[in-house]
Amino acid sequence: MDIQHAAELLGKVRALNPLVTSMTNVVVTNFTANGLLALGASPIMAYAKEEVADIARISSALVLNIGTLNETDVAAMKIAGASANAHGVPVIFDPVGAGATAYRTRVSQAIMSELNVAVIRGNAAEIANVIGREWQIKGVDAGTGEGNAAELAQAAARQLNTVAVITGKDDVVSDGTRTITVHNGDAILTRVTGTGCLLTSVIGAFTAVEQDRVQASAAALIVYGVAAEIAASKTKEQGPGSFQIAFLNQLSLVSPEDVLRLGKLTSQHE
Amino acid sequence: MDIQHAAELLGKVRALNPLVTSMTNVVVTNFTANGLLALGASPIMAYAKEEVADIARISSALVLNIGTLNETDVAAMKIAGASANAHGVPVIFDPVGAGATAYRTRVSQAIMSELNVAVIRGNAAEIANVIGREWQIKGVDAGTGEGNAAELAQAAARQLNTVAVITGKDDVVSDGTRTITVHNGDAILTRVTGTGCLLTSVIGAFTAVEQDRVQASAAALIVYGVAAEIAASKTKEQGPGSFQIAFLNQLSLVSPEDVLRLGKLTSQHE
Amino acid sequence: MDIQHAAELLGKVRALNPLVTSMTNVVVTNFTANGLLALGASPIMAYAKEEVADIARISSALVLNIGTLNETDVAAMKIAGASANAHGVPVIFDPVGAGATAYRTRVSQAIMSELNVAVIRGNAAEIANVIGREWQIKGVDAGTGEGNAAELAQAAARQLNTVAVITGKDDVVSDGTRTITVHNGDAILTRVTGTGCLLTSVIGAFTAVEQDRVQASAAALIVYGVAAEIAASKTKEQGPGSFQIAFLNQLSLVSPEDVLRLGKLTSQHE
Repeated sequence: MDIQHAAELLGKVRALNPLVTSMTNVVVTNFTANGLLALGASPIMAYAKEEVADIARISSALVLNIGTLNETDVAAMKIAGASANAHGVPVIFDPVGAGATAYRTRVSQAIMSELNVAVIRGNAAEIANVIGREWQIKGVDAGTGEGNAAELAQAAARQLNTVAVITGKDDVVSDGTRTITVHNGDAILTRVTGTGCLLTSVIGAFTAVEQDRVQASAAALIVYGVAAEIAASKTKEQGPGSFQIAFLNQLSLVSPEDVLRLGKLTSQHE
Repeated sequence: MDIQHAAELLGKVRALNPLVTSMTNVVVTNFTANGLLALGASPIMAYAKEEVADIARISSALVLNIGTLNETDVAAMKIAGASANAHGVPVIFDPVGAGATAYRTRVSQAIMSELNVAVIRGNAAEIANVIGREWQIKGVDAGTGEGNAAELAQAAARQLNTVAVITGKDDVVSDGTRTITVHNGDAILTRVTGTGCLLTSVIGAFTAVEQDRVQASAAALIVYGVAAEIAASKTKEQGPGSFQIAFLNQLSLVSPEDVLRLGKLTSQHE
Repeated sequence: MDIQHAAELLGKVRALNPLVTSMTNVVVTNFTANGLLALGASPIMAYAKEEVADIARISSALVLNIGTLNETDVAAMKIAGASANAHGVPVIFDPVGAGATAYRTRVSQAIMSELNVAVIRGNAAEIANVIGREWQIKGVDAGTGEGNAAELAQAAARQLNTVAVITGKDDVVSDGTRTITVHNGDAILTRVTGTGCLLTSVIGAFTAVEQDRVQASAAALIVYGVAAEIAASKTKEQGPGSFQIAFLNQLSLVSPEDVLRLGKLTSQHE
């Protein structure tokens, strides 16, 4: 994986406009759809058990997000996920708030065991709780726990047999063997709701154009982080409202050249 | 229908602040409410079977949108629609994604057959699928099919006994006899989610102040398109985030004079 | 209560980042989360009966809002509210549209009688309808009725045994004995959807840092109104889209000094 490849994948997302289905929470649906559209993907949201298998089948990626879960939606997510699995459509999972309640932890673990999940994306607390480690979580925000993110991502990837993405100050991707750390992004992302959720859907868009999920995830993190950096630099001290708008702009404007110029990653392999 | 009348109807919407009930999808609720408020209408959203008949009865227009449909909401839409029909409140229907799944096509056709729908608004693929024609659809975006939009709108209006609005590069309104093509709008509308859905609710606001639904729909398309053109010219190359905000501004600021200056339509009658 | 104390409470919200759970309507979830984040609180949304008792228990405040109510959500609100009551977490209630339908009035009265509500916040029509007074309401917007807001707030506080907040041109807080009128805010708040709903959640954030609910509510009104005034002055005549973004910015930027400089209240005690 190098920055050059991330830049190429950005071009590929824009050329192919992959259809990304997001079964996501009610807080972030609008922002997710606008972020995917800005990037160049084609968003769709659907929740009805009567149609989600059909929608998943025709999608390029299926994103499941439990931010405002309920039994009906979880049942529909499993139907959609099974259809995606049967048709080779990558499933990306965002275990929002795993650990905050026993219910979220239980549903997260059920989804990981019942479906073939290509990528799981969360903060350190969420990923730790999915694999049964102790980690303080405050609401849906990451708290503090033992170990570092790279070690946690490796352990999660191995235990869950998936690609694990942990976002925080730095972002880490691991399949248990290859581990990539991405050093892009800006702290103001934490002042806009749904930036983690949208990122998960953006990872979905990149898995639709790159079979290697470690590379797809790393490219998504780099592109997303670079767009955020440019947006933050353009709205310095204006506040989170202006940043959010500038960020949507930059998801549309960020170029392969910007990615080459600003993208930063470190890789390790064992 | 002439541009002068569209300009007058804009003033009428602002003077009368019609109460527009939108039973719409979870992606676009906030944008729809803000767009209607900006324009000068009074938005309300409601979904519970216990109250939608009451809400529909006191509304000036009822908008039904199946963008994230489920059985519970569809049942409530039918209750609301029946109440609107019984009390002379115009029902506007947006068959989002008809053709993308069999479920959406089936629900769309059920709504058209069970309710008296004043106006149906969709892209060409959606309208074609509602009347049983072959038309490729990609997710919830228009694909390609046979025939032109004007012919399709006429056919749909006749078959469904309603006013059909088909939006795309140009927008067409037809009741089967009179057909108006509106040449306003901007391509960047396709980069902001919910611009089609909001337009459907704006058509609702105009039907509340003009009994002739062809004229009401054409006026809505013109006002909406002119606001988009001004917003696009003010945010050229800034990106879809900035456009969205400027567009909300312009829905509030666009004047009858702007409409007279920039509105463009062609009519045909047979 | 004086302005000095409101300024101090703003600092306290930012220092303590209280976890505010909002069970709110689908129109305003994103705006509510972003507004709370901008202010410095920590937002969470949850709706499932399986987890809302757990979420309420760990929250610093629980906000219930019936803007798009349904039976499932109302049942979950009661579970969450009972848990909050049992654990000393303040419950803030927003009876959106009470009086617009019999269903909303009935649910509002049930919530007030079954739960121990710390603060109720609505427009005059909503509060009047909750206590069984005649008051015209147009959709979810305040209409006209008899009496003034201060008298109504006092009566509601006494009858409901709570702190009542009535917002309008001026805003009033009363516990039935102490009554504070806040003279901040800007009329453009009525052109952005969810500004009332977000305010209710902001009151939640202030009740989390001040036991005296009259003072907490008055401080929230002042901070919110001052932020709106600054945002309005920065976006004069640009339109409601730009105002909304500037307002989110100002919720983040508004300082204790701004509050001291611009805050305006009058108190009465009987």
